[in-house]
Amino acid sequence: MKNIISLCFLVACLPLIAVSQNIMPVPSSVQPGSGYLRIDSSFSLSIHGKKNQRIEAAVLRFLKRLSSQTGILLRIDGGRYNAAASLVIRYDTTPDSFPRLSEDESYSLHIAESGARLDAKTFAGVLYGLETFLQLVEVGADGFRARHVEIEDQPRFPWRGLLIDACRHWMPVEVIKRNLDGMAMVKMNVLHWHLSEDQGFRVESKKFPKLHELGSDGNYYTQREIREVITYAADRGIRVVPEFDMPGHTTAWFVGHPEIASGPGPYQIERKWGVFDPSMDPTSETTYKFLDTFIGEMAALFPDEYFHIGGDEVTGKQWDANPQIQEFKRKNNLNDNHALQVYFNRRVLAIVKKHGKKMIGWDEIFHPDLPKDIIVQSWRGQKFLAEGAKQGYQGLLSFGYYLDLIRPASYHYSIEPADSTIKSLSSDQQKKILGGESCMWAEYVTPENVDSRIWPRNAAIAERLWSVATTNDVDDMYRRLEITGKRLELLGLTHRTSYIQMLERIAGVQSIEPLKTFADVVEPVKGYERGRTRPHTSLTPMNRLVDAARPESDVARRFARLVEELIAGRISNDDKTLLVGFLKSWSDNDPKLQPMIAGNQLLDGIGPLSKDLSDAAAVGLRLVEIVSSSGKLANEDAISFKQVIERAEKPRAALLLMVVPSIKKLYTAVVQ
Amino acid sequence: MKNIISLCFLVACLPLIAVSQNIMPVPSSVQPGSGYLRIDSSFSLSIHGKKNQRIEAAVLRFLKRLSSQTGILLRIDGGRYNAAASLVIRYDTTPDSFPRLSEDESYSLHIAESGARLDAKTFAGVLYGLETFLQLVEVGADGFRARHVEIEDQPRFPWRGLLIDACRHWMPVEVIKRNLDGMAMVKMNVLHWHLSEDQGFRVESKKFPKLHELGSDGNYYTQREIREVITYAADRGIRVVPEFDMPGHTTAWFVGHPEIASGPGPYQIERKWGVFDPSMDPTSETTYKFLDTFIGEMAALFPDEYFHIGGDEVTGKQWDANPQIQEFKRKNNLNDNHALQVYFNRRVLAIVKKHGKKMIGWDEIFHPDLPKDIIVQSWRGQKFLAEGAKQGYQGLLSFGYYLDLIRPASYHYSIEPADSTIKSLSSDQQKKILGGESCMWAEYVTPENVDSRIWPRNAAIAERLWSVATTNDVDDMYRRLEITGKRLELLGLTHRTSYIQMLERIAGVQSIEPLKTFADVVEPVKGYERGRTRPHTSLTPMNRLVDAARPESDVARRFARLVEELIAGRISNDDKTLLVGFLKSWSDNDPKLQPMIAGNQLLDGIGPLSKDLSDAAAVGLRLVEIVSSSGKLANEDAISFKQVIERAEKPRAALLLMVVPSIKKLYTAVVQ
Repeated sequence: MKNIISLCFLVACLPLIAVSQNIMPVPSSVQPGSGYLRIDSSFSLSIHGKKNQRIEAAVLRFLKRLSSQTGILLRIDGGRYNAAASLVIRYDTTPDSFPRLSEDESYSLHIAESGARLDAKTFAGVLYGLETFLQLVEVGADGFRARHVEIEDQPRFPWRGLLIDACRHWMPVEVIKRNLDGMAMVKMNVLHWHLSEDQGFRVESKKFPKLHELGSDGNYYTQREIREVITYAADRGIRVVPEFDMPGHTTAWFVGHPEIASGPGPYQIERKWGVFDPSMDPTSETTYKFLDTFIGEMAALFPDEYFHIGGDEVTGKQWDANPQIQEFKRKNNLNDNHALQVYFNRRVLAIVKKHGKKMIGWDEIFHPDLPKDIIVQSWRGQKFLAEGAKQGYQGLLSFGYYLDLIRPASYHYSIEPADSTIKSLSSDQQKKILGGESCMWAEYVTPENVDSRIWPRNAAIAERLWSVATTNDVDDMYRRLEITGKRLELLGLTHRTSYIQMLERIAGVQSIEPLKTFADVVEPVKGYERGRTRPHTSLTPMNRLVDAARPESDVARRFARLVEELIAGRISNDDKTLLVGFLKSWSDNDPKLQPMIAGNQLLDGIGPLSKDLSDAAAVGLRLVEIVSSSGKLANEDAISFKQVIERAEKPRAALLLMVVPSIKKLYTAVVQ
Repeated sequence: MKNIISLCFLVACLPLIAVSQNIMPVPSSVQPGSGYLRIDSSFSLSIHGKKNQRIEAAVLRFLKRLSSQTGILLRIDGGRYNAAASLVIRYDTTPDSFPRLSEDESYSLHIAESGARLDAKTFAGVLYGLETFLQLVEVGADGFRARHVEIEDQPRFPWRGLLIDACRHWMPVEVIKRNLDGMAMVKMNVLHWHLSEDQGFRVESKKFPKLHELGSDGNYYTQREIREVITYAADRGIRVVPEFDMPGHTTAWFVGHPEIASGPGPYQIERKWGVFDPSMDPTSETTYKFLDTFIGEMAALFPDEYFHIGGDEVTGKQWDANPQIQEFKRKNNLNDNHALQVYFNRRVLAIVKKHGKKMIGWDEIFHPDLPKDIIVQSWRGQKFLAEGAKQGYQGLLSFGYYLDLIRPASYHYSIEPADSTIKSLSSDQQKKILGGESCMWAEYVTPENVDSRIWPRNAAIAERLWSVATTNDVDDMYRRLEITGKRLELLGLTHRTSYIQMLERIAGVQSIEPLKTFADVVEPVKGYERGRTRPHTSLTPMNRLVDAARPESDVARRFARLVEELIAGRISNDDKTLLVGFLKSWSDNDPKLQPMIAGNQLLDGIGPLSKDLSDAAAVGLRLVEIVSSSGKLANEDAISFKQVIERAEKPRAALLLMVVPSIKKLYTAVVQ
């Protein structure tokens, strides 16, 4: 009987579980079978549906990736109408020029003895089915294969976006492209491209060339590049929604065009971070004439039906200081600056509509006077979306999805767009919640490390927006996140390679080993703490340890698990060895790291933190001994240990030692 | 006194040594000073010399790399005639359209209180000076800086090449480009592009389109791509010498053009590796008419003055089997096939000359009847070059520089082009040795792992060809090779990232840790052994551990050093801990790795080798104990230990355990 169970475990049960578990986001329905489709150099593919260049290109990309994933040299061409092919793709409709909101994105993927079959109504469905297929490929005793399976899949929300801020730090086209590749892998479908800010205006305007010429330090996208990115995105089923934030966050516009500002100028590109006073003059017809021309130009450049006008964080100080604006408010019964901004929004909305677009804005634009076809994007939370939905407004959630705040993936994963507030709404009201967007604000990222802030954590948000709400096993999410991280790197994202390269820059010609041991267990401070450390401008080099450090320490998470098991008394011998090994390596690390810290500007302020880690680890080793022997901590040790732990908990050089909370747990378990 | 010495050690002496030691290849003369040039966002650059687009582009690339190396945002423009700039570049002549053999490549780079100054006669000198500058940049307490120094530098040999075989496996343009970047970093100046073979004809021919259409599986360079690569190379001071191997190694030509073959055909692209019989018909005027047209086309496409006709490995079997060819030999008093090939070479030489080129070929073309302006490239060795030089022929060394034979960098480094045979020649004869070329033959490499076979070992060959003959400290070469390897990766080479990605492919969704522990200590079999293992064709996937494994195990080299120190009785406690730690990790590894090996085709045959490693490491641990206690091995252990070591020495799955020779040294040290 034991043998039968083992056999089941090895041959059938484990793969049955595994087949769905390596897919991210998890599909709606996965029914595993019991055999495998062999994938070797004879792998063939056939397309059944109206001939279409975009679909052919997607199939070629798929074959190249399958080849790169397996190392098998495949014939890189997609045949047509060959029912005997290894993978037969059928679709109903060919793609429009550009993807649209609320297309049918479903697909079914059946892999069986006779081969694999992917059925989809639309191009989006084909793309998603191919992504899922790639995630099913594994290696077995006879080579590469995909397990027999029946998958039916569609997204929970139609709007699954990533915002990339290309303003606070410039993000060249290749950064955008590789992130579009990553988004497609996790089935995200909207790039929200944040294109203007106090710190930079990033799009070529042929109507107002001073916008990009004077507002960008030369770092802007040409209209040709914009079109190239939009096509690249459309090839991957991704819509591109531009954001031109107004009336605030507009300093860079005013360098070339002070005539639309509320204050006199002259203006310079803002170099600091924060919320600044310059804002458009909402009372001047010059402003609306300018915006009519500008939005007209951009509406023609960006084909998506939505146009984001930002609308957030207007301080109102320039308005208060301008007598003409004050006079205008009085005349028009606009009682406060919010009312004035609503007036501005209505005027802009009319322009946006005139140019054939629907308007989106941040929380602040919401006002019951506005028509119902706007979308409100909330950085404040679900209850604000619920309020809007009750009044008929569509909404997107970004609260809880700010990648720049360096929260763990588990935090983002826990943010449910349809939370209890939303669930209390009527079914029709609930449908107003279109989905959400993760946000990569760029104060503290450059092209070098931006991928490491987006990936792989963004995949957890993508899953939250795609998979059913009951998909919420955090451990399993992390397991798949690690696999997804590797797949993303193979696709061209740099979240892992940049980590090593940045550590090597810091280490210079020295070995990075002690630095990596240390860096592996630190994380940047959370939330808005970073801005409260040393002063930063847009010109500050982002080459310190805090810039290299990952948003989430895998080692610390692993260590936390080991500590929990030790305290619960169920740790294995191997894991105990691992736990002690970790602590020993940290305890020994400080003397190895200090020589590198000395005389290295890039490690300024790291010295005490390195010492803290070694001290805390030494305490940890003692605590492990006491826990293991079910002992209790002597009183004199209790005081000194507590001091060490409390010191090590404090952030330094904008970094946190992520293993300290677990060492504190050991302490709590044995303190009397 | 002790304090003064320490101070000297820390402040002055160490940097004095280090300043030259991080440069690869080592310059002719380095005189370090005692201060530093600060490198921050105010870094500026000025060009003094006739305005030239190629020089401006080189300067922009330099600034981008300096920025990427430091993380400092630099103004990416090169000013002109500003004597106060941080780096002032002066040059005498602007570059020709394309680089030429034996240009003045010297430069001087002086970094002093007043700033840095780079003087060069030619574009090549400017490029090399900029590469050296980048290698001087380091981080200090106040940020990035370059130490004051006076460097005078020029190469020992004018021809420093890398051959890339793009035929046996196809190498797309991006592979060639990133390797050109790497070559420029180590001051190599010739790309020898091997473009036709039995397994593929890789250039678009407009005169004979069947050559690439039928001879390449669609994998060929368009003429536009060829021009693009030539320009890319010229921008980096690198000449591009094409090789069209003839009359043998020509199967792929004959698929479209059987009329120039010596045998009847039909022909198919060769899929196996080896030396094959098909060769051109040297007796037919059709052949020479064809070659006249073809070489004319290629001579116009490739601007370099040299044209490589291969000429190696003609089996002669097709000639022997062809009665007309036999008849021709008799009529023309050509006594053997070598004489027939000499006849062919003279005819081809006339064609090459007619189209304005000088001819190069492999050893086999050498014949005292040929005129003196040919170059012979020797895969056989220096004495063959010496023979040629005596008779007035110029020569290039490739013997000892075959990267595909997976020899250590120290081996390549030891191959001196001007060895004692050459040194015995007259000074004029010695000058006939123009330099050498490393060769990346492509039987067992793909675009995925080719960088790992070229780099960083190729940098050791580059240094041998650039630096003075007395630069031959192997330990120091390895130290700088590691630094150079990191720099190359930052430049875009993939020798390190591909290693991890290939291991991850093998590991699938599992952690790569035990696989990496194992892979870190193995190397592919050496020389031509690989071809004697399992059968390979050009379609065999290159996705096994042997394809991922590095040509040289850094861990094994480090371990060997520790063992030597232990045996010599001078090992430190820390190093002893490291040594035992290595052995323990290997000894424990097999049980962790075996579950991955089971049922994984990509690890076929690895099981016994993994077991061998753990067994040998367990023996190693015992031996370390005995050595440490100055004991001797008991006789019964001697027999069993020897068996374990001998078994572990044997290659399996085309892999060698590189730590076993060191364990054997421990054994030898204590066996009675």
